[in-house]
Amino acid sequence: MNQIRIGIFGYGNLGKGVELAAMHSDDISLQAVFTRRDPAAIQLADPCVPVVSSGEVAAWKEKIDVLIVCGGSAKDLPTMTPELAKQFCVVDSFDTHAKIPEHFAAVDAAAELGGNLALISCGWDPGLFSLARLMGDCVLPHGNTYTFWGKGVSQGHSDAIRHIPGVADARQYTIPCDAVMDAVRSNDCRSFTAQQMHTRECFVVLEPGADADAVRNEIVTMPDYFAGYDTTVHFISQEEFDREHRTFPHGGTVIRNGCCGRELENHATIEYSLKLDSNPEFTAGVLVAYARAIHRMHKRGSRGCISIFDVAPADLSPRSPEELRAHLL
Amino acid sequence: MNQIRIGIFGYGNLGKGVELAAMHSDDISLQAVFTRRDPAAIQLADPCVPVVSSGEVAAWKEKIDVLIVCGGSAKDLPTMTPELAKQFCVVDSFDTHAKIPEHFAAVDAAAELGGNLALISCGWDPGLFSLARLMGDCVLPHGNTYTFWGKGVSQGHSDAIRHIPGVADARQYTIPCDAVMDAVRSNDCRSFTAQQMHTRECFVVLEPGADADAVRNEIVTMPDYFAGYDTTVHFISQEEFDREHRTFPHGGTVIRNGCCGRELENHATIEYSLKLDSNPEFTAGVLVAYARAIHRMHKRGSRGCISIFDVAPADLSPRSPEELRAHLL
Repeated sequence: MNQIRIGIFGYGNLGKGVELAAMHSDDISLQAVFTRRDPAAIQLADPCVPVVSSGEVAAWKEKIDVLIVCGGSAKDLPTMTPELAKQFCVVDSFDTHAKIPEHFAAVDAAAELGGNLALISCGWDPGLFSLARLMGDCVLPHGNTYTFWGKGVSQGHSDAIRHIPGVADARQYTIPCDAVMDAVRSNDCRSFTAQQMHTRECFVVLEPGADADAVRNEIVTMPDYFAGYDTTVHFISQEEFDREHRTFPHGGTVIRNGCCGRELENHATIEYSLKLDSNPEFTAGVLVAYARAIHRMHKRGSRGCISIFDVAPADLSPRSPEELRAHLL
Repeated sequence: MNQIRIGIFGYGNLGKGVELAAMHSDDISLQAVFTRRDPAAIQLADPCVPVVSSGEVAAWKEKIDVLIVCGGSAKDLPTMTPELAKQFCVVDSFDTHAKIPEHFAAVDAAAELGGNLALISCGWDPGLFSLARLMGDCVLPHGNTYTFWGKGVSQGHSDAIRHIPGVADARQYTIPCDAVMDAVRSNDCRSFTAQQMHTRECFVVLEPGADADAVRNEIVTMPDYFAGYDTTVHFISQEEFDREHRTFPHGGTVIRNGCCGRELENHATIEYSLKLDSNPEFTAGVLVAYARAIHRMHKRGSRGCISIFDVAPADLSPRSPEELRAHLL
């Protein structure tokens, strides 16, 4: 089999997930992991794969078909992806929705310059959930789309709590509101705010001597993150935290609630949901499937930046078109 | 706006649905409906659209961008779609899964000959459900996919009952088995037969003097259709039938139940479900969105036969790529 040679740039939770996803895909071969840390300090799941300092990535240009960029959306990807797209076909998981047009333009210019193909904002949201939103909008043009997140760990909200003085560790779970979800499923077409659609539950380990009431108050009133939400705060011991809150489950549901018929009298509901024990490992599986597509599309001549909306589903699969039509259509 | 000019070939429930879906899409303009019946006997929702005898369809070659072929999979489409693909870009909803490769080959040869683009097996199964099966297989390569149908009317099973002597009218509902669905959602990875995954409920109007027990026995023992299924038969009056069983609701659920992680120790479940008041009207919405894509792909040079696996989602939408990235990604 002609394997697709990938590289991983950044070895945090997502990069580790990509390594495992590549191991589970026969047609994908991991060539190297690039890190800004000391390569000697990194232990891969497969010790045969080289760990390389990020500064040396350019030397791997001819040895890698697609580089999967596993950095943070806030500080890393806005500069990292355009820089790398000059040298490599790349896939990233940029998830700051409001800044996607800006990021797209920067990556597009860089990829065109290098003759490469780049895919940004891949994963499950943005990603598979975006596809669910788009498909619902196309096949049921009269309707409303609702995106619920959770139950799952929001790393951004967990980080925000950890920055409060007196907090030793914290985990925040975003929980969709069952009553609103049921209303939407029953063709209630009203608008709901994110605050009405979700509640937030926080598990916090305090530092010795910290004031629990002050911390709780700081959390529930935090603008953008918690203010306006129904937020519950539990103070727990480090032991309980380590035992119960070390994993990264997540998930969510996209519901399209629409109408068809002469007088729009007939309802239709489309529901797409994910339930994930490990958010980063599942996201990694999506990235690897799209890396396969990017390699094929680049070989066929595609250049510049694209989104998942531009990828035909057949390109994601290692199976032949004949096999797909015979067995999955 | 530069509208896409479509035609409808066949004016049954699906053709009627396509007419309504076209009315609800600003960028789609219905040019004509073609029928094998007497055109004078057909009353369209929009009386300004011409109804034309099917024999005259070739004269419309230059006036139609995409022809949506609304015939039956058993007898009509295997000859109708290849014949029409010589003259038109076409979309059909061929749903005999086992014969898709054969139908694909016939339509592909005809469309290539005519320089046209054809899409077969479009709708929700095959169609949106096929996409859910493919995507699950790609992003979670270790796992199992389960397709549940219902609750909804199976026209094939309803027809089979109507052919039994003594039956005046009948409606059959396919019902997914909740216990199996819950097991699959909870990562039970066993194989289940269609008979284990579904039950069947029949509402039958008898002709005067018919033997209810004989009819019931004939239904529940019918090979392929009912034998092996948990089947319930209700005998009802024509009045109740007309009041309660005149519409075509349907739906279903595709569940991908997979694993990721180093030792495949983390589970992930992807669930895609539809709940439809009107099966033909919803299916029509899918056909119209894909007709839009076929027109665009043909303009870009695509020829021959394709499946929904070959269509990039962005081509389904009337919105611009910039708008899609800014608002739906």
